[in-house]
Amino acid sequence: MRQDILKELLHPNEKKIVLLVIDGLGGLPAVKGGKTELETARTPNLDFMAAAAECGLHLPVGFGITPGSAPGHLALFGYQPTEYPVGRGVVAAMGIAFPMRAGDVAARVNFATCDESGRIIDRRAGRIATEICGRLCDLLGAVSIPGVEVFVRPVRDYRAVVVFRGEGLSDHVEDTDPQAVGVEAYDPKPTSEKGIKTADVAREFVRQSLVLLKDRHPANAILLRGFAELPHVPSMAERFGLHPVALAVYPDYKGVSRLVGMDAIDGLKDLNDQAEALKQYWNQYDFFFVHHKYADSRGEDGDFPAKVAEIEKVDAFVPQIMSRQPDVLIVTGDHSTPAVMKSHSYHPIPFLIYGQNTRPDDVTEFGERPCAKGMWGIIPGAMLIQLALAYADKLIKYGA
Amino acid sequence: MRQDILKELLHPNEKKIVLLVIDGLGGLPAVKGGKTELETARTPNLDFMAAAAECGLHLPVGFGITPGSAPGHLALFGYQPTEYPVGRGVVAAMGIAFPMRAGDVAARVNFATCDESGRIIDRRAGRIATEICGRLCDLLGAVSIPGVEVFVRPVRDYRAVVVFRGEGLSDHVEDTDPQAVGVEAYDPKPTSEKGIKTADVAREFVRQSLVLLKDRHPANAILLRGFAELPHVPSMAERFGLHPVALAVYPDYKGVSRLVGMDAIDGLKDLNDQAEALKQYWNQYDFFFVHHKYADSRGEDGDFPAKVAEIEKVDAFVPQIMSRQPDVLIVTGDHSTPAVMKSHSYHPIPFLIYGQNTRPDDVTEFGERPCAKGMWGIIPGAMLIQLALAYADKLIKYGA
Repeated sequence: MRQDILKELLHPNEKKIVLLVIDGLGGLPAVKGGKTELETARTPNLDFMAAAAECGLHLPVGFGITPGSAPGHLALFGYQPTEYPVGRGVVAAMGIAFPMRAGDVAARVNFATCDESGRIIDRRAGRIATEICGRLCDLLGAVSIPGVEVFVRPVRDYRAVVVFRGEGLSDHVEDTDPQAVGVEAYDPKPTSEKGIKTADVAREFVRQSLVLLKDRHPANAILLRGFAELPHVPSMAERFGLHPVALAVYPDYKGVSRLVGMDAIDGLKDLNDQAEALKQYWNQYDFFFVHHKYADSRGEDGDFPAKVAEIEKVDAFVPQIMSRQPDVLIVTGDHSTPAVMKSHSYHPIPFLIYGQNTRPDDVTEFGERPCAKGMWGIIPGAMLIQLALAYADKLIKYGA
Repeated sequence: MRQDILKELLHPNEKKIVLLVIDGLGGLPAVKGGKTELETARTPNLDFMAAAAECGLHLPVGFGITPGSAPGHLALFGYQPTEYPVGRGVVAAMGIAFPMRAGDVAARVNFATCDESGRIIDRRAGRIATEICGRLCDLLGAVSIPGVEVFVRPVRDYRAVVVFRGEGLSDHVEDTDPQAVGVEAYDPKPTSEKGIKTADVAREFVRQSLVLLKDRHPANAILLRGFAELPHVPSMAERFGLHPVALAVYPDYKGVSRLVGMDAIDGLKDLNDQAEALKQYWNQYDFFFVHHKYADSRGEDGDFPAKVAEIEKVDAFVPQIMSRQPDVLIVTGDHSTPAVMKSHSYHPIPFLIYGQNTRPDDVTEFGERPCAKGMWGIIPGAMLIQLALAYADKLIKYGA
């Protein structure tokens, strides 16, 4: 749908849409002929909703494409991800609500451990605590590069973010993280002429940082990745007439939410907090993005039963959403993370969409194979929001 | 499919395609867990065809988008509707075969009743008869505006159309119809600078009309809506190599047919007339658009059983089509009109397509849920015509 046309059809109202994202929801059977994580999980509430809803599978980016977290979520927020490439640095900066400006370049920072010869021996510096990470970031505040402002901020554990601000910067710079131990960090190489200045800035930042961190073992080195500029993404208010809020625990998901103009509530620690926030903010917003991270985490761990358990936790949470009586509920994932693969994957993700006027199909169980027989078949992830707008009566008729 | 590529594949022949449109066909169950109108209807002939055909659902405009009548039909004629926006005024003018020219601006006219203070008390003038409407349109022929030709023509009952012809006109003008009683008609406001002249013309037209209609109670006022310019739409002959004809009762559907270069047979009053016309014109055309309006009308009335009855009437008509032995038959709707919603809706519409070489799926009943399990899943409405061309052997192989 052309955005200018969609915009003319927008008819904002008070009706409430809840998007419940079970991160990495899609999966695979642990043994050939077996069931997936979701099919294995006891999910009476999701099954009940599936029976009342329209079901299908969605592809966030495209056929065969494995989505990162940011593209997966952008799709669910209604943006074709390939039109809005978002680098990891920007996601990290947005996640901690750092106020990036146009022209800024952000990169993810890992504190790491190197040996005396400069070889990386731990890419996560023994997973130092967030408090230590914060003190190290303060320390790096002493870095001084002529003509460039440098901001270093903690994210979580060993992860931080650096933002460079100045004239002529660009994200055309390669990662310094070698993604392996026993080797030295890479030199920040420009990928085009536009990246030369930023690569020089990054190199100087690393040089001064190593001096400052010399005696801070295990955090005596840094690795940079995901150099990224702020993309221009029209807000969900502008594009869909929605007033959205993110109820997410993890910074990165608040980050991608803020990128599309969502408010993001800070300080939420678990599903109970999220349920409480849903109640508290119910009258202030009309779109609620509720995010549960750990299905993905356990999938990445390769822990099939633990992923099943996380899905069951979300299932038990569903009645708390339904008690608010949302006009539209979508339940889905941002990508698949099959435990047997220990990584994100390209598999389409099951979804259900429920509303007053949904036309039920024959699906009575929320799972990959049942949803594959749902009425929507496989659709682009970014289309879900249009369906939600329709079912919430937020779109008028097109044409005479 | 890019049109320039499709055009190179066109291979016109004598084979006959029939597109049977049951207006507003798609529906919803009247009670949760129940059947839709189509699923409720006894449709032995459509079920028989569904068993022999390929089935699926189509979306005329896009996900979540509720199609108006014109876009819904444009999609079925093979045009992505968002590429060809058609205003209500143009649909009305085409419907009565008024020969619009490039640059003309048309608007729908409702004769209405106002009280002494000028407030609208009946937006349809007591639903005056078409004959009276015709005499009133003749009366308005006396309107004289310097530099602009004005044509006023009756459509049906209290509905008419006005066409303004002159230099520098545009459809950037808002409706004067307040869509409510107890208030005065709006002043015709321009929506951009381009609309200023036309708004002035419309204002003068209304002023003179009110004088002429002063003693014509209940038709002593007029309301204008859907100001529209003629869009350029390539004909179905040009685009698909077809020689098409419309067998429709209602003017609006003849209108949208003429817009794509179809001949439209006048004077048809019901399905019997349409069957007769099918026989009469069988050798003169290769594409027959047969339209039945009343499933939509009863859906808009919220009358579930009456909509069911209309669908059953069409079912009984199907053998008359099949007795002509069409090479390809498509049966579908232009949009959904669930009786429970009393309006057009965004739900995908079931279709069946039958031909010599269709590959039957397992669908044996023509309905929303059975078709959702059909082999095509959900496809864009504008693709149906390509399938029809293929099944009628009107497309050659692409590439070596």
